[in-house]
Amino acid sequence: MAIVGIDIGGMSIKLGIVSIEGKILEKINFKVDYKKLSSDQVIEMIKDHILMLLDKSKFSKNDLEGIGIGCPGAINAPKGVVDYANNLGWVKVPLVAKLKEYFNVPIYISNDANVAALGEAIYGSGKQYNNSVMITLGTGVGGGIVIDHRLFEGNEGKGAELGHMVIEVDGKECSCGRRGCFEAYSSATALIESTKKAMIENQTSQMWQEVAGNLDKVDGKLAFEYYKKGDLVAKEVIDNYIHYLGEGLLNICNIFRPEAILLGGGISAQKDCLLNLLEPYLEERFYGYRQSPKVALKIATLGNDAGIIGAAALVLQNAIVK
Amino acid sequence: MAIVGIDIGGMSIKLGIVSIEGKILEKINFKVDYKKLSSDQVIEMIKDHILMLLDKSKFSKNDLEGIGIGCPGAINAPKGVVDYANNLGWVKVPLVAKLKEYFNVPIYISNDANVAALGEAIYGSGKQYNNSVMITLGTGVGGGIVIDHRLFEGNEGKGAELGHMVIEVDGKECSCGRRGCFEAYSSATALIESTKKAMIENQTSQMWQEVAGNLDKVDGKLAFEYYKKGDLVAKEVIDNYIHYLGEGLLNICNIFRPEAILLGGGISAQKDCLLNLLEPYLEERFYGYRQSPKVALKIATLGNDAGIIGAAALVLQNAIVK
Repeated sequence: MAIVGIDIGGMSIKLGIVSIEGKILEKINFKVDYKKLSSDQVIEMIKDHILMLLDKSKFSKNDLEGIGIGCPGAINAPKGVVDYANNLGWVKVPLVAKLKEYFNVPIYISNDANVAALGEAIYGSGKQYNNSVMITLGTGVGGGIVIDHRLFEGNEGKGAELGHMVIEVDGKECSCGRRGCFEAYSSATALIESTKKAMIENQTSQMWQEVAGNLDKVDGKLAFEYYKKGDLVAKEVIDNYIHYLGEGLLNICNIFRPEAILLGGGISAQKDCLLNLLEPYLEERFYGYRQSPKVALKIATLGNDAGIIGAAALVLQNAIVK
Repeated sequence: MAIVGIDIGGMSIKLGIVSIEGKILEKINFKVDYKKLSSDQVIEMIKDHILMLLDKSKFSKNDLEGIGIGCPGAINAPKGVVDYANNLGWVKVPLVAKLKEYFNVPIYISNDANVAALGEAIYGSGKQYNNSVMITLGTGVGGGIVIDHRLFEGNEGKGAELGHMVIEVDGKECSCGRRGCFEAYSSATALIESTKKAMIENQTSQMWQEVAGNLDKVDGKLAFEYYKKGDLVAKEVIDNYIHYLGEGLLNICNIFRPEAILLGGGISAQKDCLLNLLEPYLEERFYGYRQSPKVALKIATLGNDAGIIGAAALVLQNAIVK
């Protein structure tokens, strides 16, 4: 039996054969220049690489039992269509139907944040829980909701846009067009922005010296590093970041009361430093509401493999119900 | 077959025999003075009234197939315990276990907002949808989430506290202890407060004249009434109310992408006036996110019966899965 998980990214596409224990048995990836290639050409390449992957793992096409796909953008999961993926330049691409022309097996697709959440929930940091919510703190803020070990995706697979929950009405502009979204305060992008702002206002700070005033060198780690060193400017940046992130997570606690929140994305690389700041924040506020159970906070463990593993889990999830 | 739905309120308790089509066949209610009675005494009264109700409907105790209960406060649904209900003065009351001493049938309990949402979703304004979220705009803001015709309650039944989603970090104080909750802006209580504030600031307004300066007469309807009459002070109050309520509802769209949001509670009595203000607000903002399906907005239809009917639906929901 071979289940293939596919993680479509803005620069490259990763594919893997995944065991039902969630181990990647073999993987392969290829770079894609979406500006030069049509979606049909990219799908042709995906097909070729699935065959290559099967071959590399000594499977035949007949061994293939299912394909799962995680893709950025607005995905119509039930219809298998990529409605709109800005990074790929794709609009209304019927990805599942096109792949079905080559492979007569069940094929499932979902938004990449959802897929990563399912992977983490079933095989990663959430595997001991029935219900978990994953929050990915990267360029944006992604969300994925797993209820009773299954993905909750909402109508047309368009729910779980947890990064686009407004936490400050009329607040900071968000890329989505609304103002004050969770993402506008809690993404790595937002942290970098506020780090730069604090540095400009405090040009004698250690952070300013570190990059010799070159703000292009500021990343999502800098403020955390100098916070650990006791720098007061960095402390203010991080305290403010944790305040907004904490309020967003308390909202997730109150809305879903999951057993666990799984933190992924670039900021989650701060691991214990991040948890040591967030846990007391949530604890002091009764995890959102008095008389309510604690919500475990976990750092995602699957890293870059979450996409492939989660995509394969999509196949297994659907195999179980049918 | 007789299924009893019980709606526990802060002043009285309502009980009904509900058909599987969601019709109340017979109902009964009694006043309760929680300050004078122990929880055991109230439970004894509930038992007596269940027997009276059965008798009144010509059922015997053997016809009873199940009991469902909606109760305000923090309810541990899986354990059947009222953890904390401020209005009733109850702490850790094992209501289900106590009733089981009298009735050897399945007994289920949930938070009153959840129960009303289930009733509306299955038998009321949401019956044509698989997935809906109910928002109750009353003294507070209650929430209930129905996924695939079943209540989603979260760990220990403590999820779906949608009124306690912060929409303005560091905003208005909320009764829950946090600041800036949806409830602090969108409850009838919040509307009354902001109506009073606007009237004090504009003592020549028509609303001020209406109550002859007696602010105790201000209710959740006043600003809506004068908004309809074209009063500018009322318009500002209502526009601001719709802005915050709209942002909260857009959050619900993005988080759950339900097929419908069902609006209940006192404010929902504004019906078309409320919908005519909210629908364009959501529509202009793409129901929260571009390329996402519209979310239907519906006014709840079960009114005061939602509690009894929803409580009975709890029994049916659980009968289906077992």
